[in-house]
Amino acid sequence: MNIDMIRAADRRLDGHVRRTPLLSSPILDEIAGRRVLVKAECLQHTGSFKFRGGWSAVSALDDAQRRAGVIAFSSGNHAQGVALAARTHNAPCVIIMPANAPAVKIANTRALGAEVVLYDRATEDRDDIGDRLSAERGLTLIRPFDDAEVIAGQGTCGLEIATQAAAEGITDAAVLVCCGGGGLTSGIALALTTDAPGLRVHPCEPAGFDDVTRSLAAGSIQRNAALEGSICDAIVTPQPGNLTFPIMQRLCGPGFAVSDDDCLRAMALAFARLRIVIEPGGAAALAAALFHGDALDSDAVIAVATGGNVDPVLFARALAMDPQTA
Amino acid sequence: MNIDMIRAADRRLDGHVRRTPLLSSPILDEIAGRRVLVKAECLQHTGSFKFRGGWSAVSALDDAQRRAGVIAFSSGNHAQGVALAARTHNAPCVIIMPANAPAVKIANTRALGAEVVLYDRATEDRDDIGDRLSAERGLTLIRPFDDAEVIAGQGTCGLEIATQAAAEGITDAAVLVCCGGGGLTSGIALALTTDAPGLRVHPCEPAGFDDVTRSLAAGSIQRNAALEGSICDAIVTPQPGNLTFPIMQRLCGPGFAVSDDDCLRAMALAFARLRIVIEPGGAAALAAALFHGDALDSDAVIAVATGGNVDPVLFARALAMDPQTA
Repeated sequence: MNIDMIRAADRRLDGHVRRTPLLSSPILDEIAGRRVLVKAECLQHTGSFKFRGGWSAVSALDDAQRRAGVIAFSSGNHAQGVALAARTHNAPCVIIMPANAPAVKIANTRALGAEVVLYDRATEDRDDIGDRLSAERGLTLIRPFDDAEVIAGQGTCGLEIATQAAAEGITDAAVLVCCGGGGLTSGIALALTTDAPGLRVHPCEPAGFDDVTRSLAAGSIQRNAALEGSICDAIVTPQPGNLTFPIMQRLCGPGFAVSDDDCLRAMALAFARLRIVIEPGGAAALAAALFHGDALDSDAVIAVATGGNVDPVLFARALAMDPQTA
Repeated sequence: MNIDMIRAADRRLDGHVRRTPLLSSPILDEIAGRRVLVKAECLQHTGSFKFRGGWSAVSALDDAQRRAGVIAFSSGNHAQGVALAARTHNAPCVIIMPANAPAVKIANTRALGAEVVLYDRATEDRDDIGDRLSAERGLTLIRPFDDAEVIAGQGTCGLEIATQAAAEGITDAAVLVCCGGGGLTSGIALALTTDAPGLRVHPCEPAGFDDVTRSLAAGSIQRNAALEGSICDAIVTPQPGNLTFPIMQRLCGPGFAVSDDDCLRAMALAFARLRIVIEPGGAAALAAALFHGDALDSDAVIAVATGGNVDPVLFARALAMDPQTA
């Protein structure tokens, strides 16, 4: 994993990825007590940064692999990112999802041309199904974060942040990233360490599901005690990846843990002040920037709003909050 | 009014305006039956295109005028656009608003550094107050649409559309613009007629408040019968402007009239598919593109989402709609 892989991924993504804007509002600056810039990855194709990694991985396949197709396990943003990337490359795509996944997620993934294979969480093992399908059809597995080409794709977001921060005159800043398995966090950190070394990456996670923050503090991989109970489902993972953790250990930290209510308030402020839609797991970094910045000493903070795929009922709950009572 | 004024405004705006993205979603294409691209001016500073015209007008003042300051009548997006432009230029700014304007709009305008002067709609005449303040302090009035520098500023949005459409390979398209007094509509039309002559502008208005559509059909300025009763408050004006109407008559048409429910459904689709927040008056063009495109014969439509300043309660009402039952 190095910067050359990220630059190569960026060349493959060029003309296909959306170069997302860096947004700001004087009111958010005032709340945070410093400049706040929001990298709006919710505006990316399929509504999250996952399209970058999906495109990077699919576009790195050779012709035979592409013709055979790809497979991914996901009921969320990774599924949609991989599905759209595969469709555009005319590669068959199988997405394995639990049968009790929300109907809208199944429908959205099918609408992107993927073959959705459902399994019963109680009686079936998804890895067995995946192994069987891969063996039968020669499918290439695209992992959500512990995959070098996926990390390289997510790192292209870091290249853009480096360029956009320089254009804003920012050479010294904290970069807060909503973090699940660490693919985006490690990719951005790799990109910034060469292209904008004054920008330091901090992972942001839901309180109670802060495996990366605890792993960085302990110096070894720590697991989450539970995997359910946060509204930030997009960034709840069992533990940091074997590829991503050493990168984060070298380049990132410390992490932030934020409450569900912090995320809902950040969503409400992003609605009112930036006019973007972010999902709870995509709001963790902005929540940390706005409500937990005491630990930071930089004049500017860049928060990555990683995704915007949120149920209208949950979004309405965020809108009903008084966003400024942190 | 000509293209040179728009190019000059664009040079003054450069580095200050946000170059807003052109967003899209395969699901919106499917609903409309053609390619749909959305120019997301809701992501502009202060949440609407009005910042362009405000900046253009303030930056065109000479030093003495700028020191004396500016004045505007508005309770909405124009107020905020002018206030932020004036503050950045260190120009004093007076905004005259009805005393019964929503508290949040008054607070937002004050937060941008403007002096807000309230008047009683029943007993006071706002023009008298404006004339008195202007005479006392030498303030320059910035009209919301019938002002050449304001039209030039709004026209910069058209220059961006021309460049972005060309990058997407689009040379023939309908450009739908949410239309109040016609400043944005006429400015975009002027820009496109030289920079992208295959793109034709159509104004979009709330049904029952379609003065521009009727004026274009009649060949002379028509007035709205009423000024209240639409949720699209941002684009309800008494009649097209004396400067804007001849431009629209020469370059635009025919117009579209859309219902409040069409706008709410377009807001819900923009939330779910583009992850942007648009206000009802900023959704009229997208509503026309999605639900009233039968009258169009182009393969692509570009809808300008003009603003995103919407009350959370009203936005929640849009979220509760089933967006696809048009």
